[in-house]
Amino acid sequence: MHLKLTIAYDGTPFCGWQIQPKLDTIQAQIENALTEIAKEPIRIHGAGRTDAGVHALGQVAHFTAPHHLNMNPFNWVPALNTKLPASIRITACAEVPADFHARYSATAKTYTYHLSLAPILPPFLASRAWHLPRQLNPDDLQLALSQYLGSHDFRSFCSNRGNETAETDYTRHLTRAELQHIPEGYLLTFTGNGFLYKMVRFLTGAAVQTAQGYLHQDELSLLLNDPHARIKKSLLCAPPDGLSLLSVHYGTPTSPKSHS
Amino acid sequence: MHLKLTIAYDGTPFCGWQIQPKLDTIQAQIENALTEIAKEPIRIHGAGRTDAGVHALGQVAHFTAPHHLNMNPFNWVPALNTKLPASIRITACAEVPADFHARYSATAKTYTYHLSLAPILPPFLASRAWHLPRQLNPDDLQLALSQYLGSHDFRSFCSNRGNETAETDYTRHLTRAELQHIPEGYLLTFTGNGFLYKMVRFLTGAAVQTAQGYLHQDELSLLLNDPHARIKKSLLCAPPDGLSLLSVHYGTPTSPKSHS
Repeated sequence: MHLKLTIAYDGTPFCGWQIQPKLDTIQAQIENALTEIAKEPIRIHGAGRTDAGVHALGQVAHFTAPHHLNMNPFNWVPALNTKLPASIRITACAEVPADFHARYSATAKTYTYHLSLAPILPPFLASRAWHLPRQLNPDDLQLALSQYLGSHDFRSFCSNRGNETAETDYTRHLTRAELQHIPEGYLLTFTGNGFLYKMVRFLTGAAVQTAQGYLHQDELSLLLNDPHARIKKSLLCAPPDGLSLLSVHYGTPTSPKSHS
Repeated sequence: MHLKLTIAYDGTPFCGWQIQPKLDTIQAQIENALTEIAKEPIRIHGAGRTDAGVHALGQVAHFTAPHHLNMNPFNWVPALNTKLPASIRITACAEVPADFHARYSATAKTYTYHLSLAPILPPFLASRAWHLPRQLNPDDLQLALSQYLGSHDFRSFCSNRGNETAETDYTRHLTRAELQHIPEGYLLTFTGNGFLYKMVRFLTGAAVQTAQGYLHQDELSLLLNDPHARIKKSLLCAPPDGLSLLSVHYGTPTSPKSHS
């Protein structure tokens, strides 16, 4: 049986999503729990690899349950949660068609980024927000986010993973880049058909740089519209703490084809 | 100079407030930071000893700053926060009269307790709430809280610390015992002139027991009004995770004299 898991986690205590030798990762925790239940090794495939310190409310992964188990999808939720640490929760499990792939079937993803302007960062936000006690210009934040909307070559707004080639396509399409006032801060929400490595953190960092008067909106515009443009400033990559994968979208895309 | 600190902390990583040999406690963290700044040992006195896992938004402590430092009270806030882990924040520092004592000058304290009814506890609430996924009767919660109001001998609602005598006074006066609906749960707020050891956790536990149909309101009433009454049930001590010391009150008491 082919199953889709929806997963929430506090990324603080983990070395990111992806399984890595000798490191405590979210994928490893879930695979270990599944393997314990199934009594045979089970591999899961996530919709995206979140970095160390990045959180999720709606990460998605799929796996194939062995025939001999014959467990109702619904029962995987408590079975897994009993074995997982409280910082990782399976929130749903559903049967999906055999060709469903958590990553390749995804048509879009939504991330949020939490900026805290509190003069003193409350202890409970210590690993959940980027603390910016200096004043930010909200109009500039808003303007930067508006610039991100639509299709752009985002090569200036990512880190290389090391497997890029001359043919690598850096174009992504953003359908949502919203600014929301929350108590003592802002919540930024991004929906796109795909995101490059660390892209949300660079989009957030650059928006903050415009709001701090360090980067001009014209420079942002140049980088978004001419991928070969160079400016004499470095874009800031926001820290992982404020970032959460809110949800992964499946079904008809409303915009150009999805990218990983 | 005699100074009053207001302190917020996430109690999760610490072995409680009180300094103890070889254990990481909040008092030890703050005393170490103060000692590093003052270059001489400094002792602080807290308004109350919170247990391991208990949080605070407005804990209070006092200390005497050495004469040679001559630091503006305001400057202690960033000086200490730079040295403290992000899970402990000094939120204010003010000069107080020489006879001010964080514990003995307090006229009341307010605690909150977070009950989560979420079917699956969100990872970020893992160390911040008591997870009660079964149904609770809110009318019973409300009724139990109303019974707590006023002056009672609360000996049935505490743990012994080991230093109790026949003369120990278990009477405390509660001026607030409120139930607030929050998303997927309840917040209980208690204000009293003092609280016995683990008292808020017992008050919460017993209120939950009435709301789960395990304890009758009449039994609660009996225990509150006749300190020598015995019932054939054990009162539940709620886990520390949901508990926060919200604030410590100083100034004219509106109710009988304060107890520690």
